[in-house]
Amino acid sequence: MLIVKAGGAAGVDLDTVCADLADLAEAGEPWILVHGGSHETNVVAKKLGHPPKFVTSVSGYTSRYTDRTTLEIFEMVYCGKTNKGIVERLQKRGVQALGLSGIDGRLLEGKRKGALRVREGGKTKIIRDDLSGKIDRVNTDLLNLLTGAGYYPVICPPGIAEDGTAINTDGDRAAARIAAALGAATLVILSDVPGLLAKFPDESSLIPRIALADVDDAAERYAEGRMKIKLLGAAEAVRDGVGKVVLADSRIENPVRAALDGGGTTIEA
Amino acid sequence: MLIVKAGGAAGVDLDTVCADLADLAEAGEPWILVHGGSHETNVVAKKLGHPPKFVTSVSGYTSRYTDRTTLEIFEMVYCGKTNKGIVERLQKRGVQALGLSGIDGRLLEGKRKGALRVREGGKTKIIRDDLSGKIDRVNTDLLNLLTGAGYYPVICPPGIAEDGTAINTDGDRAAARIAAALGAATLVILSDVPGLLAKFPDESSLIPRIALADVDDAAERYAEGRMKIKLLGAAEAVRDGVGKVVLADSRIENPVRAALDGGGTTIEA
Repeated sequence: MLIVKAGGAAGVDLDTVCADLADLAEAGEPWILVHGGSHETNVVAKKLGHPPKFVTSVSGYTSRYTDRTTLEIFEMVYCGKTNKGIVERLQKRGVQALGLSGIDGRLLEGKRKGALRVREGGKTKIIRDDLSGKIDRVNTDLLNLLTGAGYYPVICPPGIAEDGTAINTDGDRAAARIAAALGAATLVILSDVPGLLAKFPDESSLIPRIALADVDDAAERYAEGRMKIKLLGAAEAVRDGVGKVVLADSRIENPVRAALDGGGTTIEA
Repeated sequence: MLIVKAGGAAGVDLDTVCADLADLAEAGEPWILVHGGSHETNVVAKKLGHPPKFVTSVSGYTSRYTDRTTLEIFEMVYCGKTNKGIVERLQKRGVQALGLSGIDGRLLEGKRKGALRVREGGKTKIIRDDLSGKIDRVNTDLLNLLTGAGYYPVICPPGIAEDGTAINTDGDRAAARIAAALGAATLVILSDVPGLLAKFPDESSLIPRIALADVDDAAERYAEGRMKIKLLGAAEAVRDGVGKVVLADSRIENPVRAALDGGGTTIEA
């Protein structure tokens, strides 16, 4: 099983991803697509008069502050426009795609974060109404039911807490949890960079391979911004049984094929 | 099997519908929910600067003009905010709900309308970019797969044309097609009226029962606005094998239970 994560940044071209996935489906290769939508969520949130707000935790991580209104906008973009747009693109190419969020059938279950301690203007502030959390359980029965019947799942956050509350959650991590839960051979994480760069942003300094044992060191030395989270997530997935994780570029012509053919940065045991 | 359609008008209270459906699930009764979202779609479309436009066909029917931008807003509200909001409400009540649009797994397939001949300012105009259509096939294999595994489907438009294009489609008709395809015993269509009224809008003039043979006559004599389409859809469903169709009020405390207990207007053979 192949799991592909396509990001939601401004430069990500979903058409090329869908074209590659349609070829793979045609060749009889099963896959699951996990997608983002953060850039479009920001655009729509601004238009709707509820602009995005990002908070930085006391430990230095930045995340989207998700109140109820933000969660609804998030669902509109991720589960509505983006998810159905991808399913439509795939169906037009003859793929029996089916879109699900992590809420549906408790596909992605996790814990809601407790009170969030954030830094704001040099002070520490506590946020209690944030609806975000971390996925730790995947409903593999549901995925096996669907893939076994010939459907290609197209999955997005939010996830769901044990009490049924929807929780905003990181898409890369969700993809990693799915790959690990299914014991996938390969997880491809596409974004708007070619992989891990030794000299960011010099794209010719791509690091093609990192052994699992060296990931922490590489993350510390080379990773900028969200790449650090991607690397640590990749390492976690490999430790949990995924064959290999490829961090690759979504901006090229055949992004999935290129990643499977050795492009990007591969993390393996 | 029970099919429930809950409308998307301003007055429709989804909490009461979800509470009733949770009780039925708890009692082991299988059901499928089909929902609308038209009022909220109008609100969001206005906020996003793309206000809704309705057109009246030369034969007198009014429908939403659905260009690509409108379809995306429609998907944001129906498949995003509304569908996931309902699934979350049901999951909070312990129901293993799972949301799908008609695009997903080609659940609701139909024909896209050709050029639309509409009346505008006394003139006939032809619209060619309208993305709407009429459902004529239901993927019952997918519904049986999910309900057989214990999931409760929560379904909304759009549907999908044969070539994979998403098509805006009438929710009442979609529910009727699902009920007919599954040979459902009962289809309950909830909206913001108590059923068919002999003297609209006098709610005490509710007509409790219409035999199939009398539906055309009753629609002609009593039905106002969308009630006509609802009645004709109900008759079509009964002719296609649904045990009975109940047109009932969504604004009361236990709307589904009341409809099952003889409330509203029942159409049966």
